[in-house]
Amino acid sequence: MDLVTVREIYRNREAYLDKEITVGGWVRSVRDSKTFGFLVLHDGTFFETLQIVFHDKMDNFQEICKLNVGAAVIVKGTLVATPQAKQPFEIQADEVTVEGGSAPDYPLQKKRHSVEFLRTISHLRPRTNMFQATFRVRSLTAYAIHKFFQERDFVYVHTPLITGSDCEGAGEMFQVTTLDLENPPKTADGKVDYTKDFFGKQTNLTVSGQLNGEMYAQAFRNIYTFGPTFRAENSNTTRHAAEFWMIEPEIAFADLKDDMILAEDMLKYVIRYVMENAPEELAFFNSFVDKGLMERLNSVVNSQFGHVTYTEAIEILEKNNDKFEYKVSWGCDLQTEHERYLTEQVFKRPVFVTDYPKEIKAFYMKLNDDGKTVAAMDCLVPGIGEIIGGSQREDSYEKLLQRMHELGLKEEDYRAYLDLRKYGSTRHAGFGLGFERCVMYLTGVSNIRDVIPFPRTVGNCEG
Amino acid sequence: MDLVTVREIYRNREAYLDKEITVGGWVRSVRDSKTFGFLVLHDGTFFETLQIVFHDKMDNFQEICKLNVGAAVIVKGTLVATPQAKQPFEIQADEVTVEGGSAPDYPLQKKRHSVEFLRTISHLRPRTNMFQATFRVRSLTAYAIHKFFQERDFVYVHTPLITGSDCEGAGEMFQVTTLDLENPPKTADGKVDYTKDFFGKQTNLTVSGQLNGEMYAQAFRNIYTFGPTFRAENSNTTRHAAEFWMIEPEIAFADLKDDMILAEDMLKYVIRYVMENAPEELAFFNSFVDKGLMERLNSVVNSQFGHVTYTEAIEILEKNNDKFEYKVSWGCDLQTEHERYLTEQVFKRPVFVTDYPKEIKAFYMKLNDDGKTVAAMDCLVPGIGEIIGGSQREDSYEKLLQRMHELGLKEEDYRAYLDLRKYGSTRHAGFGLGFERCVMYLTGVSNIRDVIPFPRTVGNCEG
Repeated sequence: MDLVTVREIYRNREAYLDKEITVGGWVRSVRDSKTFGFLVLHDGTFFETLQIVFHDKMDNFQEICKLNVGAAVIVKGTLVATPQAKQPFEIQADEVTVEGGSAPDYPLQKKRHSVEFLRTISHLRPRTNMFQATFRVRSLTAYAIHKFFQERDFVYVHTPLITGSDCEGAGEMFQVTTLDLENPPKTADGKVDYTKDFFGKQTNLTVSGQLNGEMYAQAFRNIYTFGPTFRAENSNTTRHAAEFWMIEPEIAFADLKDDMILAEDMLKYVIRYVMENAPEELAFFNSFVDKGLMERLNSVVNSQFGHVTYTEAIEILEKNNDKFEYKVSWGCDLQTEHERYLTEQVFKRPVFVTDYPKEIKAFYMKLNDDGKTVAAMDCLVPGIGEIIGGSQREDSYEKLLQRMHELGLKEEDYRAYLDLRKYGSTRHAGFGLGFERCVMYLTGVSNIRDVIPFPRTVGNCEG
Repeated sequence: MDLVTVREIYRNREAYLDKEITVGGWVRSVRDSKTFGFLVLHDGTFFETLQIVFHDKMDNFQEICKLNVGAAVIVKGTLVATPQAKQPFEIQADEVTVEGGSAPDYPLQKKRHSVEFLRTISHLRPRTNMFQATFRVRSLTAYAIHKFFQERDFVYVHTPLITGSDCEGAGEMFQVTTLDLENPPKTADGKVDYTKDFFGKQTNLTVSGQLNGEMYAQAFRNIYTFGPTFRAENSNTTRHAAEFWMIEPEIAFADLKDDMILAEDMLKYVIRYVMENAPEELAFFNSFVDKGLMERLNSVVNSQFGHVTYTEAIEILEKNNDKFEYKVSWGCDLQTEHERYLTEQVFKRPVFVTDYPKEIKAFYMKLNDDGKTVAAMDCLVPGIGEIIGGSQREDSYEKLLQRMHELGLKEEDYRAYLDLRKYGSTRHAGFGLGFERCVMYLTGVSNIRDVIPFPRTVGNCEG
């Protein structure tokens, strides 16, 4: 259908003013007097609404007056400027056609609903201001990430979701199977016979695409992944979902410094893109969700990120141990309270913490010359703490194998990964960005359930 | 590291000619005489290689001469034009530093390997010309799809992967569980107790994001999904994978005609984007994989797609039934042989077949006024047959419910989906594009295993 969108009207008003146009959308509110009335229309393409004036010369005046919130209409009329009014323009309608009515029990009314209630109607909540803004920002953020990497000629790699291996034992995994659980085939010794399963062995949902990403970085030099990741952790928090999306770039001929430059450039690029392309949505979040949002985003975009080693960070934090629930000392992992203290109080800007003790980091991270720390980095940002975690990877076959042995990892499970260190190994690095955490950061939304269209959490797989 | 990429050199040679530059990459071949030698270097950023001339003034001349294929090197030297030679320029090296050697058993040698062999080393095959080309095109195709929809202000929606429902029963599904299969919890009557499973009920991997996509189209008007999809079908063919990616746009205030315009525009846009951004790769495919590729792609981009109803198509095909293994008659589903005959022999260009019998299409497709056919469309392209399938959706609550009853679908499983027809229903439409099929079409690669980085098929979950 040849409809003008509300986005086009707002972004390019001069082209439409005083012209007859046709728009379509959903009714946010209706009010009428005896001879005319107003519809507030939202068409889903833009955060703002459009006011429609209708009048009793229309055959279906009564029908329009009785429209319920949520009804779909198509409106033909003239766009006129309204310099005296709150809204910049309105449509003086010649025709209002009802495309689809809205039943009286429509759950969304013209009032503020709680996010908890809205989570119970995940198919309707994107029609509210809050979720219109959130999911448009989510979409723009995803695109900004692709755009950033593609403009730099990174190759986008779809790493597999179903996997026969468990990268770094990063967490509890979901099993994937076609066996009949009521009556699974058994081997002679009474175990489940996985040779009868779809893939001929036991399989799980991936927890990270990194190891596969490294394989492609050693072929394409610069790659990124952007896909779903799964954790079967029984943690019912505002920051954990069972199904979420991750971005994992991997760069060859690159060290930890290159990795941090890439992470900083990426974050700034994505924030800028969203600020430019969703100003109305960010203004809404800044007013109604997180008053400090715009200031924080502006500050990140304009700052030079700080750098501090883990050892230095621990020295700083130890002096302030009285402020923390968990006291720090060298060797311990940093908690969110420590991360936020560093970025918010000490550096007052994003900061990279580098060179963590090898014991608290993954086996594949490159051992530093001190033999105690690894070339890891976490990027901490005000308001949230860690947003990115990355490292230079161990590129020495011998050192990697030794570390795997220390940790009891089986060589045969990592044959392909070890091959990368045997055939043209290069220094290389990468990082992981939790996509939902990034969207939460860009919107100020504090519960991960509210930035995922149909969230999956322990006990919840609705919609 | 501050390395110039081979891509930059080829695309912007004037900026680098006669300058000293540093490049890094992997050795494709080495040959030497007594006083000098040649390395052919591939750096993963560009399809073409770069020739390096090295000489015996270097301290490590002997080391370089002995490099095995696959070794990683960093080269400092001057880029000089070589107008007499096959390649347009070469680097006259001052220094060649070995970044990582390549063990003597490196499986990739300077000869053509079979794709079957290469599938057994999925971590190394992206280093070959064939898979360099394929996976760069895959990446560019993915980006072109995002770019197309984002430029049109479509909202990208991540529909869920783990699901408690089975959309349209589109195929066998994988079960997702955290239960211990050796000893699952049981209910009083001896069944598996799914209330103890992670989500408190039985869950599967999605076969389509469409129903969720429709929910978002009724909020944002124009949306698209682009994510993984799963089928647990025990079919070992060149066209089926257990895990693949799908694109499913959905548009509100739109009918089947709008849907076809969108599909045609998208296909042409994506082909054009890949032609512009991967000319070297497409030339390779045209020479070594599929001689008719460029002609076919050019023809698609420049043609107006044809339109024919299913009923008309059957009339045409029936006259040629002697040519087909499966004879057609009204009511039967079209096989690939029929689809290809229509697009290749009859129309000689892409063609939309519309208005299929309702019995061979999904329950949610809009019933036409004839009461027999539905507003469905399949887009058929030369060389492959169906590449896109879509429809206008049934937007009448009563008709949808009636069709669900006819097919024995349970109302309570589709409560949210039915709600869309209750609250501001609009005419709307959408389609599905199998991403791998699209990449196969763009490259001429005939086995789906060779366009997926780490393919998952029955009995195979390696890498």
